[in-house]
Amino acid sequence: MRTGEKVLDRAAATCILTLCFVCLHVTALKTQLFTRLGGLPYSTEPPVSYKTFYFDQKIDHFGFLEDGTFKQRYLLSDKYWQQPGGPILFYTGNEGDITWFCNNTGFMWEIAEELGAMLVFAEHRYYGESLPFGQDSYSDSKHLNYLTSEQALADFAVLIQNLKGTLPGAQHSPVIAVGGSYGGMLSAWFRMKYPHVVVGALASSAPIWQFPGMVPCGDFYKTVTQDFAKSGINCDANIRKSWKAVNNVSSSASSLQWLSEEFSLCAPLKNKNDVLTFKSWLQETWVNLAMVDYPYEANFLQPLPRWPIQVVCKYLSFDSTVSDYQLLQGVAQAAKVYYNYTGSSPCLNTSQTATSSLGYLGWFYQACTEMVMPMCTDGVQDMFEPEEWNFQAFSDECKAMFGIRPRADWAGTVYGGKEISSHSNIIFSNGGLDPWSSGGVTSNISHSLVSIMIPDGAHHLDLRYSNDLDPPSVRAARALEVKYFQEWIKKAKKAHRAAPTG
Amino acid sequence: MRTGEKVLDRAAATCILTLCFVCLHVTALKTQLFTRLGGLPYSTEPPVSYKTFYFDQKIDHFGFLEDGTFKQRYLLSDKYWQQPGGPILFYTGNEGDITWFCNNTGFMWEIAEELGAMLVFAEHRYYGESLPFGQDSYSDSKHLNYLTSEQALADFAVLIQNLKGTLPGAQHSPVIAVGGSYGGMLSAWFRMKYPHVVVGALASSAPIWQFPGMVPCGDFYKTVTQDFAKSGINCDANIRKSWKAVNNVSSSASSLQWLSEEFSLCAPLKNKNDVLTFKSWLQETWVNLAMVDYPYEANFLQPLPRWPIQVVCKYLSFDSTVSDYQLLQGVAQAAKVYYNYTGSSPCLNTSQTATSSLGYLGWFYQACTEMVMPMCTDGVQDMFEPEEWNFQAFSDECKAMFGIRPRADWAGTVYGGKEISSHSNIIFSNGGLDPWSSGGVTSNISHSLVSIMIPDGAHHLDLRYSNDLDPPSVRAARALEVKYFQEWIKKAKKAHRAAPTG
Repeated sequence: MRTGEKVLDRAAATCILTLCFVCLHVTALKTQLFTRLGGLPYSTEPPVSYKTFYFDQKIDHFGFLEDGTFKQRYLLSDKYWQQPGGPILFYTGNEGDITWFCNNTGFMWEIAEELGAMLVFAEHRYYGESLPFGQDSYSDSKHLNYLTSEQALADFAVLIQNLKGTLPGAQHSPVIAVGGSYGGMLSAWFRMKYPHVVVGALASSAPIWQFPGMVPCGDFYKTVTQDFAKSGINCDANIRKSWKAVNNVSSSASSLQWLSEEFSLCAPLKNKNDVLTFKSWLQETWVNLAMVDYPYEANFLQPLPRWPIQVVCKYLSFDSTVSDYQLLQGVAQAAKVYYNYTGSSPCLNTSQTATSSLGYLGWFYQACTEMVMPMCTDGVQDMFEPEEWNFQAFSDECKAMFGIRPRADWAGTVYGGKEISSHSNIIFSNGGLDPWSSGGVTSNISHSLVSIMIPDGAHHLDLRYSNDLDPPSVRAARALEVKYFQEWIKKAKKAHRAAPTG
Repeated sequence: MRTGEKVLDRAAATCILTLCFVCLHVTALKTQLFTRLGGLPYSTEPPVSYKTFYFDQKIDHFGFLEDGTFKQRYLLSDKYWQQPGGPILFYTGNEGDITWFCNNTGFMWEIAEELGAMLVFAEHRYYGESLPFGQDSYSDSKHLNYLTSEQALADFAVLIQNLKGTLPGAQHSPVIAVGGSYGGMLSAWFRMKYPHVVVGALASSAPIWQFPGMVPCGDFYKTVTQDFAKSGINCDANIRKSWKAVNNVSSSASSLQWLSEEFSLCAPLKNKNDVLTFKSWLQETWVNLAMVDYPYEANFLQPLPRWPIQVVCKYLSFDSTVSDYQLLQGVAQAAKVYYNYTGSSPCLNTSQTATSSLGYLGWFYQACTEMVMPMCTDGVQDMFEPEEWNFQAFSDECKAMFGIRPRADWAGTVYGGKEISSHSNIIFSNGGLDPWSSGGVTSNISHSLVSIMIPDGAHHLDLRYSNDLDPPSVRAARALEVKYFQEWIKKAKKAHRAAPTG
């Protein structure tokens, strides 16, 4: 497991979409993510109100030997639903607790009334409470075998067919899929594979092309770098220099102690491995900042100021005469913007591991099977230490960790890769600041496969609650999205009226 | 197993698409089918010439635990292929030996030169030589677990992606799926699920709507009945009367002996069970005749005269004064048209069982899982004994036979049922004489989901070699099919030229 973790930890290749859609190395995944899911405060957002249901799903849609079922959780709000026939906005849950996505997708809550829509948030199997084998779901690769995007899409299809068949007034309700990040990929794929179930999809910040051979592996980190470059003078250049500075000051125990103290690390750095972990952690910090570079004070991954990268960059505007120590002092202050904006963190933790978190293992398994997303850095076009994408090493580590190997080409074969022009009614929205836009659809493919770019937007800003500080681009994006929704709904109703039978 | 066979044997519900796409009850399936596959003579058709290849396919595309592979057989002919970029006509193999489909799909061989096309015939997993677990493939439901249409479609997609990636000149070749009967269903579904892999599909005599809730369960046998009704005076009426006549003459041993002798049965009828089997066998005979009611002498299921039902009906034109014995003498002569046209059969066999035939078990498993096709008779609108569709009994027998239960709604959920209008580039061709047209798409759905009706055609007549006696409707159908192919190819090439990168 250690070597497995090491490669997964170090390789840029392993940047993954996670619960928070954060590009993380494993350590940081373990460090940060799952310790924060429990108590996110939503004090600034309106309260959401829904009922929780559980649906009996087949564990295996694609085989008949395993005939067991599990309880798939879904949340439903029909407060504004205009029945009969009012539309259903269906969130295609991604790799985490569905209540978290429900609470973080304010856009759906804000447009429900206007559309007269029912809201449904469906949990993705193997996450949250929707565990096919209960506590054994993650016990081994045998139990994990039904954790695939295809099974998840089939869950959504079966659930919707059931809702339409059983909810009075829902039989002819047009359903629109909505999702962000991996959930956005699922929304897009859902419309592609089950166009008879959903009339359209909003795929927000969905990197459906972040697969082998589709986009350059370095684009992700280039976007991160650009965010820093434009947020402050010398900001990206100083981060690029900082890796060598860390190496330079890591030569002695006393320097390591100094570095640990500057960063207020909970556990002082002691050896080369610690330094590697430390650098990964820093790299992830910059990536996370790029993803949550929102125009207002927000608490998505961390409580942060508005435009946090600008704040971070204030500490990184040194000219070329700066010493390694001065530079790292600046880096430490910058990191603390991310980790201690509220001033309540006594120390920063680079190595905390996830304990019982299922989500962590779940996405890891998915990355090790279907979701092969090449990432790389060169240190020139990006501000990170050079690291090539090495599929073989990645595959070996997956084999060591789960006993299975990823299939590099499968996602492209099953979902079409860049050859998706024959599909229809999908909105691909992307933020210009979001590194995941590198794997997204950022230009129109056809009149009904449309791209909406939000130049000032970070990761699926459009799906968040509206805010007074929202840039006009995201306001326009949301308005356009609603316009498409209305068109799809209108067309579906017209088609229903024209149909000879109900 | 006996009870299982009994229900499956008796129920109209179990009429299935088989190797020959024949609607058969189990007994007849066992009786007839697999004894004839070996030595079908193709003396009147031009010889076909292909190379045989084997491709390493994943046993399970939808899970990662089972990482084994098997050899999928495919046949390839590039005699007329205009490379680079010439189209590929890809036969989506159905439930049997692919060489048999290859030899029986003369249409592809006849248009290859005109289109400059490569021909590929891909064998369906679990049939012919493409056995995922070799001789163990049918040993139990565990080994049968990967026999699904979804896995078969994934096989086709992976194979095509591989061919395009490895055959020089094939990278930009537009691929068109072609199939008949269940193979036609696969072609249609292949275009729906993998439109990035095939630019279009010809689904000939493909009953994609023969699923629960989509079409009336009685339509299939109604069409059979209509074929007989229009082929001779009183023909359907006398067959309708014949069941009671059989019952009437079955009351004594001597009458049974008479019946057995009239029909030249290899094994004389001895009890009520034999009589039930006998009636099923007769019913299947009429169904088979409806499927192969071709306008020329042919040897598809049996050597038969041209328009065989007209020949059969000559023996069934009695008026209402006919006695039971006279009527059954006529029925016997009619049956011998089907079973002994060449005069070389010493006796007729109603109970021969399939021995080591994998195909029989394979389709049975598919019918007992995804391919739930309700059938029923009422004896009024059709000429058969009334029999309702009983899903529960069917399910119970599947459970007894394979340890699994069918999922009545799954095919509709995964393939869209009647809600397929958002797809494109599929030709649904159907013969007016073919009972399977009852579950087919027989009117246009959109400008690119088109129906071609062949009023004088039986089961996928359009896919057969052309013949001087072909009715104009099938000639026109083939011409139109080629026209669509050419349009799809032209459009694909244009799109390729317009694409920024290869």
